[in-house]
Amino acid sequence: MSALPKPDAGAPTPAEAVKDLMLAHDAFSRWLGVAVAAVGPGYARLTLAVRPEMLNGFGALHGGVTFAAADTAFGLACNSHGRQAVGLSVTIDYLEAGRPGDLLTVEAREESLKHKIGVYQVRVSNQHGTVLALFKGTAYRSDKEIPV
Amino acid sequence: MSALPKPDAGAPTPAEAVKDLMLAHDAFSRWLGVAVAAVGPGYARLTLAVRPEMLNGFGALHGGVTFAAADTAFGLACNSHGRQAVGLSVTIDYLEAGRPGDLLTVEAREESLKHKIGVYQVRVSNQHGTVLALFKGTAYRSDKEIPV
Amino acid sequence: MSALPKPDAGAPTPAEAVKDLMLAHDAFSRWLGVAVAAVGPGYARLTLAVRPEMLNGFGALHGGVTFAAADTAFGLACNSHGRQAVGLSVTIDYLEAGRPGDLLTVEAREESLKHKIGVYQVRVSNQHGTVLALFKGTAYRSDKEIPV
Amino acid sequence: MSALPKPDAGAPTPAEAVKDLMLAHDAFSRWLGVAVAAVGPGYARLTLAVRPEMLNGFGALHGGVTFAAADTAFGLACNSHGRQAVGLSVTIDYLEAGRPGDLLTVEAREESLKHKIGVYQVRVSNQHGTVLALFKGTAYRSDKEIPV
Repeated sequence: MSALPKPDAGAPTPAEAVKDLMLAHDAFSRWLGVAVAAVGPGYARLTLAVRPEMLNGFGALHGGVTFAAADTAFGLACNSHGRQAVGLSVTIDYLEAGRPGDLLTVEAREESLKHKIGVYQVRVSNQHGTVLALFKGTAYRSDKEIPV
Repeated sequence: MSALPKPDAGAPTPAEAVKDLMLAHDAFSRWLGVAVAAVGPGYARLTLAVRPEMLNGFGALHGGVTFAAADTAFGLACNSHGRQAVGLSVTIDYLEAGRPGDLLTVEAREESLKHKIGVYQVRVSNQHGTVLALFKGTAYRSDKEIPV
Repeated sequence: MSALPKPDAGAPTPAEAVKDLMLAHDAFSRWLGVAVAAVGPGYARLTLAVRPEMLNGFGALHGGVTFAAADTAFGLACNSHGRQAVGLSVTIDYLEAGRPGDLLTVEAREESLKHKIGVYQVRVSNQHGTVLALFKGTAYRSDKEIPV
Repeated sequence: MSALPKPDAGAPTPAEAVKDLMLAHDAFSRWLGVAVAAVGPGYARLTLAVRPEMLNGFGALHGGVTFAAADTAFGLACNSHGRQAVGLSVTIDYLEAGRPGDLLTVEAREESLKHKIGVYQVRVSNQHGTVLALFKGTAYRSDKEIPV
């Protein structure tokens, strides 16, 4: 019944701020169409539906799309502490082919966080729980704060 | 003066066949807009103009786009021998940020080719010759031939 | 009370056979001094005490020793199914420095096993449970059987 | 005929100082037995003779030894500018097996050098010029100077 806002209504956490920054202003992620299921300090979970325009010439999910989804989760997780971070070195292993109609879950977890460096692992799984790809990313953390 | 076609006019090499397969039938690569400058056994060179919709939330070239361009060159090079190959494990290092308006050159070279495994390095450079990213990919070569 | 051997006493499993092959006949692993705590299908766990001769010029555990310990666990795990396997591509991330006197646990787990390819992750931790390194290895599985 | 020292005799360059630090005080590198053929800013070249105690259980050069030799060249190159640097993330691809009696050349080249990060590629080749392994390393450069 009160019209008063809660004290911190509208004050996003750093993790939420980076989500807005990375997804709302990022045409590539919009094209990709990832949906953020959860984001928090050092963590992000996305979902992605595999659409026909994401297939490669062999009819399987394009490795570049798998990478981009994992890279987006990595970006959310490594920027979630409120300092701007950039990817330095990334490796991805493709375990199983993604298929049209798959609903992917993309989960990034922080393995290590130091002053200048963070390390993250990302798993891309399908609706049956099969892991399609393992992604590991090392990020460099700048001193620039992400505007909240 | 002859209207007769040469016996093998229009008979593409395996490298050309894979180029058609991978680019003409691959919506993701079409979205990317890479242009193939050269393709041959174990080799591919592409160009890519960085468009506004390829930027990330910080205004720099999205790492997923850089990866996808390199991955496309890798795919062309590792499939160029006429047998279907898939990426197993890939690593990418980001050296410098790409910028809007950059014209990228993406060059894939074969480092090793064995019966079942091929290894490739890809360099992504801008119009000033600055290397933006180093990409290394290991491919598994199946026994399936690519239709010519 | 019986002097009769159990029916299969002395018949090692493939995982045990590969352990003998890799450690008893492998001078480098002997120099390293790893102890096998457990080995089974797709799995291996080792321990290693950090000795003075394993330090680098800065007094910390040499990255080459960390790698070698992880590589040994990877080798045991990927050969544990009884077919000879070789490492194709490996990546290692160094998270924390190892110190003289540390007692390391090195654990390899199988992430994926296919006819020709296996993928493994290895964690190297110290006696406090701190993860010092993450290692990911892709192995090519030949058709040669490991003699039992 | 002169007994006077040259003006800067005994004043090693940073690259030479790091060579002394890393090899003379590093028991693991001594065990390895690498010989430094050349070292300079962002560059190092070593040689290594493959001895029987470097073989794995299959009679080929142990991947851990190949890695350690490449890691030593990486360490020399990334520390050669006089600031202490540590490896963050490394990837190695094994292309061909090394054999007993091989004489290896291990060459590290700088791909990128920034304030905090350096990226290096290392090639390990045998006496026939065949590349046995490709190694790529990302180093974090601290502010600590290496004592000259």
